[in-house]
Amino acid sequence: MTYAAPVAEQRFVLDQLAGLGIEPDMLDAVLEGAAQLAEGEWAPLARIGDTQGPRLTDDGVRMPAGYREAYRAYVEGGWGTIGVEEAHGGQGLPFVVQAAVLETLGSANMGFALAPILTVGAIEALSHHGSPEQQATYLPRLATGEWTGTMNLTEPQAGSDVGALRATATPRGDGTYTIRGTKIFISFGDHDLTDNIVHLVLARTPDAPVGTRGISLFLVPKVRLDGTPNDVRVVSIEHKMGLHASPTCVLAFGEEGECVGELIGPEFGGMRAMFTMMNNARLNVGLQGVQVAEAATQKAAAFARERVQGAREGGPSAIVAHPDVRRMLMRMRAQTAAARALVYYSCAQVGRAEARDRLEIMTPLAKAHATDLGNEVASLGIQVHGGMGFIEETGAAQFFRDARITPIYEGTNGIQAADLVGRKLSLSNGAAFAALIDDMRREAEAVPLVALVDACERVGRRLQTADADDRLAASYPFLTMLSVAASGWLLERLARAGDGNRRAVTAFYLDQIVPEALGLEAAATAPASQLYALSAEDF
Amino acid sequence: MTYAAPVAEQRFVLDQLAGLGIEPDMLDAVLEGAAQLAEGEWAPLARIGDTQGPRLTDDGVRMPAGYREAYRAYVEGGWGTIGVEEAHGGQGLPFVVQAAVLETLGSANMGFALAPILTVGAIEALSHHGSPEQQATYLPRLATGEWTGTMNLTEPQAGSDVGALRATATPRGDGTYTIRGTKIFISFGDHDLTDNIVHLVLARTPDAPVGTRGISLFLVPKVRLDGTPNDVRVVSIEHKMGLHASPTCVLAFGEEGECVGELIGPEFGGMRAMFTMMNNARLNVGLQGVQVAEAATQKAAAFARERVQGAREGGPSAIVAHPDVRRMLMRMRAQTAAARALVYYSCAQVGRAEARDRLEIMTPLAKAHATDLGNEVASLGIQVHGGMGFIEETGAAQFFRDARITPIYEGTNGIQAADLVGRKLSLSNGAAFAALIDDMRREAEAVPLVALVDACERVGRRLQTADADDRLAASYPFLTMLSVAASGWLLERLARAGDGNRRAVTAFYLDQIVPEALGLEAAATAPASQLYALSAEDF
Repeated sequence: MTYAAPVAEQRFVLDQLAGLGIEPDMLDAVLEGAAQLAEGEWAPLARIGDTQGPRLTDDGVRMPAGYREAYRAYVEGGWGTIGVEEAHGGQGLPFVVQAAVLETLGSANMGFALAPILTVGAIEALSHHGSPEQQATYLPRLATGEWTGTMNLTEPQAGSDVGALRATATPRGDGTYTIRGTKIFISFGDHDLTDNIVHLVLARTPDAPVGTRGISLFLVPKVRLDGTPNDVRVVSIEHKMGLHASPTCVLAFGEEGECVGELIGPEFGGMRAMFTMMNNARLNVGLQGVQVAEAATQKAAAFARERVQGAREGGPSAIVAHPDVRRMLMRMRAQTAAARALVYYSCAQVGRAEARDRLEIMTPLAKAHATDLGNEVASLGIQVHGGMGFIEETGAAQFFRDARITPIYEGTNGIQAADLVGRKLSLSNGAAFAALIDDMRREAEAVPLVALVDACERVGRRLQTADADDRLAASYPFLTMLSVAASGWLLERLARAGDGNRRAVTAFYLDQIVPEALGLEAAATAPASQLYALSAEDF
Repeated sequence: MTYAAPVAEQRFVLDQLAGLGIEPDMLDAVLEGAAQLAEGEWAPLARIGDTQGPRLTDDGVRMPAGYREAYRAYVEGGWGTIGVEEAHGGQGLPFVVQAAVLETLGSANMGFALAPILTVGAIEALSHHGSPEQQATYLPRLATGEWTGTMNLTEPQAGSDVGALRATATPRGDGTYTIRGTKIFISFGDHDLTDNIVHLVLARTPDAPVGTRGISLFLVPKVRLDGTPNDVRVVSIEHKMGLHASPTCVLAFGEEGECVGELIGPEFGGMRAMFTMMNNARLNVGLQGVQVAEAATQKAAAFARERVQGAREGGPSAIVAHPDVRRMLMRMRAQTAAARALVYYSCAQVGRAEARDRLEIMTPLAKAHATDLGNEVASLGIQVHGGMGFIEETGAAQFFRDARITPIYEGTNGIQAADLVGRKLSLSNGAAFAALIDDMRREAEAVPLVALVDACERVGRRLQTADADDRLAASYPFLTMLSVAASGWLLERLARAGDGNRRAVTAFYLDQIVPEALGLEAAATAPASQLYALSAEDF
C-alpha cells in the first residue's frame, strides 16, 4: 500500500475553514499536482532515507540515492514558490495553501519535507526583516528552492533558553561581520540538494546586552556570492531516533576566522526576526503532526482491511471488523481530522490583519496539540499492525520514530503551554482568549463540547490571575483542554457542511474524545505546590 | 548516570502488598544481589545490545560481545532458580520475588532479560504439564538457566488467532513426534548463551480438530539429549524498532523431516498448557512496563537535575526547577509507582489458591495497563531531555523504542481488554469483579478514587449484560478505568504506611491522574454502532 494524498479532504477543509476566494480549478490543480509529486517521487524514497540516511563526507553531507532528483522535481515544478509573494518570484498563494502542499509532501516523506519547511522560515525572515538588496539577492532563489535555508539558534548550552547563546558577530568594517560559534541541531545544515545554503544565524555583536535583548540575526551563505566557500564546517551529523532523511548537523562557524555574514534587520533585532521565522515554523511543525497522522492512518487502515485474523459471524475476518481495531482506526481518523482542522484553521489566519490575536492564541495549540496527536496516532498505527508494527520493514515504526521529535523542536510543547498561559491568555488584556471562547460557545452544539468550552473558560480565567508557578503547573493540561475544545468546534463546523462519514467521525470525537479532555480539569486547576512536594533530589 | 536498582522501594512494596513471610535478611540479600548483577554487568551492555545486536551466522545466532559472560554470571549466581520449586532444583521463593529480580535485570537491560523471562514460561509449562521424566530431565537445567526456553506459538497467518496455526506433529511410532512448520516472532529463538535451547512448540497432530481444540504442545530441544542437533533452522532475525538485544527469530522446524519432539501433557491439551505459560508471562510482560518506567524515570530525573536552562529566582536554574518539567517527572514517578503496585500485587496472587479469581481479573490489567504506562513514561522521558532525547547516544530513545513492543506481545492489549470484559467480568458469575470492587470501595479514601470505583462498578455491571460487540467496543477504556482505580487503591494502601514523599506522589496520582480516568466513562459506555458508522473501506 502506498500513500495517497487526501486531496478531496484537504480541499473541503480549505473551503470550509479558510474561505480563500481562490479559483476552485486553480486550487485543485495545486493540490493534485502536489499529490502527484509526493506519491510518485517523494514517498518511494522514505524508506531509503530512513535506512541509509545522509552521510558526512570530506565534501560535506551527501543525501541518499534519489533525493537530488526528487528535490529537482520539486524545484522545477515550482512547488517552493506557492506561498511566496509575487514580488519575490513567488505565486503569492495564501500560507494555508502552501501548508496543504507541505502536508502532502511531508506525509510522503516527513524528513525530506523539512528542507522546504526550513526554507519557508528563511523566506519569512527575509521578507519581513531583510533589506531590499538582501531580498533581491536571496528571495528569488529561496522561493524556487534553488537554494535552501536553515535556522541556527541552538547551542549546546542554549536550547529552550535562546538568550544563553554565545556565538559572536564582529564588524569587519565593510558592513559585514565575522561570525564565530558552534550551532547544534541544525536541520538540513548541509546537503547536496542545492549549490548553496542560506544559513540564518543568531549571534551577539561586541558589547551586546546579555540575554535575548542582545541577539542579532545574520545571514551566512554556505557559498559567498563571489563563489568562494564561506568558513562554515559540518562537524557531525547526529544519530537520531527518526527523521533520518533530514541531516541534523553540528555546524562550526568561523573556525578560521573567515566566516562572513551580513546583518538582517537592526542590531539587537534578532529575537524579533527569529519570532517571525518561528511563529510560522511552529504552525508548520504542527502540520507535521497532521502529516504523520494521515500517513499512519492510511497505512493502518489498509493493513486492517487486508489482515485476516480471527472470525466474526462464523467466518474468517479481516481485523478491521473487530470492535477494538475499529476503535483504534476511528480514533486515528478522528484525531487526524482534529489535527488538520486545528492547523489549517490556524494557518488560514496568517496574513489576515484582523485575525492577529486569533493567530497568536491558536499557534501554541496548533504546534503542541497537533504534534501530540501525530504521536498518538502513529502509536495506534503500530498497535493496529500487531507484531508486524514493531518490524521496521512494515513502515509503521518509522512514523512513530519520526513523529517523536515534533513535540520537541521549534519550542518544546512545554514551552508552547507556557506561551499559552503566559503571553497568550493575557493578550489584548484577555480579549483574545475571550473572543475564542465566545466564538466556540456561539457555535458549539454537542453537550460535552459545550461543557468543555465552559470548563476552558473557567480554567482560563482562573489562570489569568493565578500565581506564575500555578499557571505554569497547569499549563499543559489546560493547553490540551483548549485544543480539544477548538478542534471539536472546528470539526462540528465541518460536519455541518459534510457527509455522513464526516458526521460519524465527528460524533466519535465529540462523544468519546471531548469527555477525556474534561477529565483534565482537575490537573489544570491543581496548585504548583503539589509538584514541589518532592525535593529535586527525591525524584 | 547509571541505573540504580530501587531496592528499598521494591522491598517496601513487597512488604506492603505481598505479605510474604520471608526472612527480611534473605529478601534484602536477594534484592541487593540482583541489583549488583544488574548494575554491574547487565546495564553496561544495554547500549551495545541496542547498537550491534545479535547476528545470524552459519553457526546460528551470535550475541554481542559481553553477553555470554553476563549471562554466565546470572547462571552462576543462581538467579534463575529463585522462583523454581525446590524439587526441581530451585529456591522455591514466591513468584513475586522472582518478579522483583526480573524487574531489576530488565530495567538494566530489557532485551536481555527476556531470555530469563521466557525460560520462566517454559518452566511453568513443564512444572504443570510435563511428565515426571520430562521434569527430571529439563527442569533442573532450565531452573539454573544452563538451558533457556522459548515459546513457539505464532505463525505468519496465526497471531492473535492462535487456533489458525498449521504446524504439524506426526507420531514416529516410538512415542516421539516429527514436527514440521514455521514459527515467527520467536524471542531468543537462537543464541550462543547456552549449549541448548528448549523450544515449546504448538502444533497439530494428524486429524486434529480445527481451531484451538486441536492444538497440542511439544517439547523440541535444539540439541537432542544424545548430543545430535535437532532439525531446527534459524531462517532470519527480525529487524525490530527496539529490544535489539533480544534476537527475534523465524524458526523452521523439520525442513528435512528430522525434527523430533515430545508431547507435553495430553494430546489436544496445547491451549491449556499454553495458558499456563502465558498467564504468568503476561504478568512478566506487565513487569517490563515497570522495568522501562523505572529506568526512564531515573534517567530523566538525573538529566533534569544536571541540565541548566533558563532562570528562576534570578539565577540560572536546572530544569528540574521548572514547573512543567516537574509535572512530567512527578507524572513519571507516579505512573511508575502505579505500574509497580499493579504488577507486584498481581504477581503476589500467583500460587495462592484462595486468590485465583483475583489473579485472573488482575492479569489483563497488569499486562495491559503497566505496558501502556511504560510507554507513556518512556515518552515523557524523551520529552524531559528535549532535543537530546531524540539523539540515540543519550539512551532515552532506546527505552521508548524498546517499550513499544510490550503492548503487543503476549496477547495485544486489545486482547487483554477483550479478556477482561469477556471471561473475567463474568468469572464466578461476576463474583470476581464484585469482590474487587468491594475491596476497593472498602478502603478507598480520596474523593476522586471513590468516584472512579463507583464508575467502574457502574460500567462493569452494564458490560456484564451488554451485547458482545458493545462490550468489546468499550473494553479498552474500561480496562484503563479499572486499572487506574486498582492502582489508586493500592497506592493509597502504600501511602498509609509510607513517608511524606510517597504520600506526595500518591496525592498527585489521586488528584490528577484518577480524574483523567473518569473522563473515559463516556467511551466505556458508548455503543459499538458508533465504530461501525463508517464502512471498512471508508477508514
